[in-house]
Amino acid sequence: MSADRVYNFSAGPSVLPLPVLEQAAAEMTNYRGSGMSVMEMSHRSKVYLGIFEETKADLRRIMRIPDTHEIIFMQGGATLQFSAVPMNLIGKTGVADYAVTGNFSALAMKEARKYGEVRIACSSEDKDHSYIPAQEDIKVSADASYFHYCANNTIYGTEWKYVPDTGGTPLVCDMSSNILSVPVDVSKYGLIYAGAQKNMAPAGTAVVVVEKSLLGYEHPLTPKMLSYKSMIESDSMLNTPACYTIYMLGLVLKWLDAQGGVEGIEKIKAEKAKILYDVLDDSKVFIGCAEKAARSDMNVTFKTGNEELDEKFIKEAKQAGFENLKGHRVVGGMRASIYNAMPMEGVRKLAAFMRNFESRNKR
Amino acid sequence: MSADRVYNFSAGPSVLPLPVLEQAAAEMTNYRGSGMSVMEMSHRSKVYLGIFEETKADLRRIMRIPDTHEIIFMQGGATLQFSAVPMNLIGKTGVADYAVTGNFSALAMKEARKYGEVRIACSSEDKDHSYIPAQEDIKVSADASYFHYCANNTIYGTEWKYVPDTGGTPLVCDMSSNILSVPVDVSKYGLIYAGAQKNMAPAGTAVVVVEKSLLGYEHPLTPKMLSYKSMIESDSMLNTPACYTIYMLGLVLKWLDAQGGVEGIEKIKAEKAKILYDVLDDSKVFIGCAEKAARSDMNVTFKTGNEELDEKFIKEAKQAGFENLKGHRVVGGMRASIYNAMPMEGVRKLAAFMRNFESRNKR
Repeated sequence: MSADRVYNFSAGPSVLPLPVLEQAAAEMTNYRGSGMSVMEMSHRSKVYLGIFEETKADLRRIMRIPDTHEIIFMQGGATLQFSAVPMNLIGKTGVADYAVTGNFSALAMKEARKYGEVRIACSSEDKDHSYIPAQEDIKVSADASYFHYCANNTIYGTEWKYVPDTGGTPLVCDMSSNILSVPVDVSKYGLIYAGAQKNMAPAGTAVVVVEKSLLGYEHPLTPKMLSYKSMIESDSMLNTPACYTIYMLGLVLKWLDAQGGVEGIEKIKAEKAKILYDVLDDSKVFIGCAEKAARSDMNVTFKTGNEELDEKFIKEAKQAGFENLKGHRVVGGMRASIYNAMPMEGVRKLAAFMRNFESRNKR
Repeated sequence: MSADRVYNFSAGPSVLPLPVLEQAAAEMTNYRGSGMSVMEMSHRSKVYLGIFEETKADLRRIMRIPDTHEIIFMQGGATLQFSAVPMNLIGKTGVADYAVTGNFSALAMKEARKYGEVRIACSSEDKDHSYIPAQEDIKVSADASYFHYCANNTIYGTEWKYVPDTGGTPLVCDMSSNILSVPVDVSKYGLIYAGAQKNMAPAGTAVVVVEKSLLGYEHPLTPKMLSYKSMIESDSMLNTPACYTIYMLGLVLKWLDAQGGVEGIEKIKAEKAKILYDVLDDSKVFIGCAEKAARSDMNVTFKTGNEELDEKFIKEAKQAGFENLKGHRVVGGMRASIYNAMPMEGVRKLAAFMRNFESRNKR
């Protein structure tokens, strides 16, 4: 970590790999001899299409996306997908199942109700979303067009550790906050979507991976820009895509390759998460917010149980160069988001700081 | 212009001011002592909100946007607004008027038909969109919720030189390709929208300026991210906006101030356009595509009338460092887009190159 950088534990937009930022800066006014910035390139120019195609191919290779599935780059983040998913898919039967395990899955569910009948297949609301429901607690509808869940809940710090068995109903998954942190068998999913601003790139792009055979039930009032069919036909270029964000994703994917791909990063992220959870498990000051079995490897949520002490911790951490440790306003407490680009060193130093804080404070 | 840069006449995404790109590069890994890139900042952090608020205030000041109008930053470019405009506004009467003067206004009109009754108030299709209809040729509907037009037609190189008089029907205008090039009396408009990637910033943001009193007729199936009401209530932060693109817009607005604002840039752009149109008017080889009275100051379209000669011109121009002069695939020929960030020098050199080409070639 360069001396003038902080350790940024923001839940999103979040830290990007320093070499990626340095490369972007170096290429800013003249991309590899083109005489222009990537920001200035026509999206239909040969040089930009080269960037675009390579990024798409790298994503397909790294995520092992089968030929049955198409990759779409859209704008509007995951939240616009809360609308696009039902507008494109719910028409098959008019019904969809939603698992509610946090803030964003609840928002997705609420939005889907505009477009069809939505059934809550399971919910963790009874215990403040501190856990993930077990397979046997999921009620799957026989007539659902799809089953929607959110793989990692940034606010509550929980993560699905298994792929729900829906008995054939297509799985739709919001992977915004853990995509590319763990290998995924894409063939099990009808649709995966993710906002870019956590593990992929700066904010401004959502990646959608969709099984082509699910399409054909689009609501007639679907805005053309939200139509998966139209986006696939135009290869995500119905209009100008968020070109620069896609370029940044391309750089991040090259960096990911250097980490050993998702298989490599999976080991690193497990080690990073263990370092912080070990602190929580040993602690007499800090309490982990999520049930152990459901702990997220991306967002570590904790508190002291004393709001003043929480504030003191956040303030002292900031002074020590650890930024954005404040928990989401809905839940309070603390949250350390340790996405792919958070260096091991940052996690180790935070763990040491937590132990030191603990030695100086009581709950 | 630095020695390694080309003159980029792309219609969009297009050239950005070099000092802006240089500043972005310099601030890439550490924005003004924050220890992080703007790309890495939480959109709700103090430092990012500072950037956001200043950009919004600068835009309001530079465009002289009155308090009756709100500024919204959305994603999806102008094309998503083709849907958002009718979904938010057509509900008042169920009817809207559209002026069709090119490719994008036709697409906007077609999309609006999903959501209500659309009437063509005027069209320039009879002469291949080479002109802008006169006021007396516009048929305004008494019961229209709004009247939509596109201020500048990038593909055909035409520009509205007057504000249509609709007798009170709210004006909705797509200003994607000439926003910030000329002073606009915003109070005359119900809604202005523009994709960022021409005169404002890299692709990834659309700016919407909307008169609050027009809202309240939203279609119930409007995706929440497309609801102007919801976007205003959340100050464009219903979810993570395209933070970095907004930061870039902020840098461009500071640069615009240094050019004397829209009043200053208006004089510069008029001079730049005159240089190229003078070449066309004197030429025995090049023919301007747009009628003189409707010529765009942003996109200068021309041809030789001989496809082989067009190709020769484009090829030789590229070798001489003038990029992206090929006309849109719909119309062929040539197009020099000379947006705000195209330096005077680039236009002068292109004019000289054209005169030289003419001295060596016959139609």
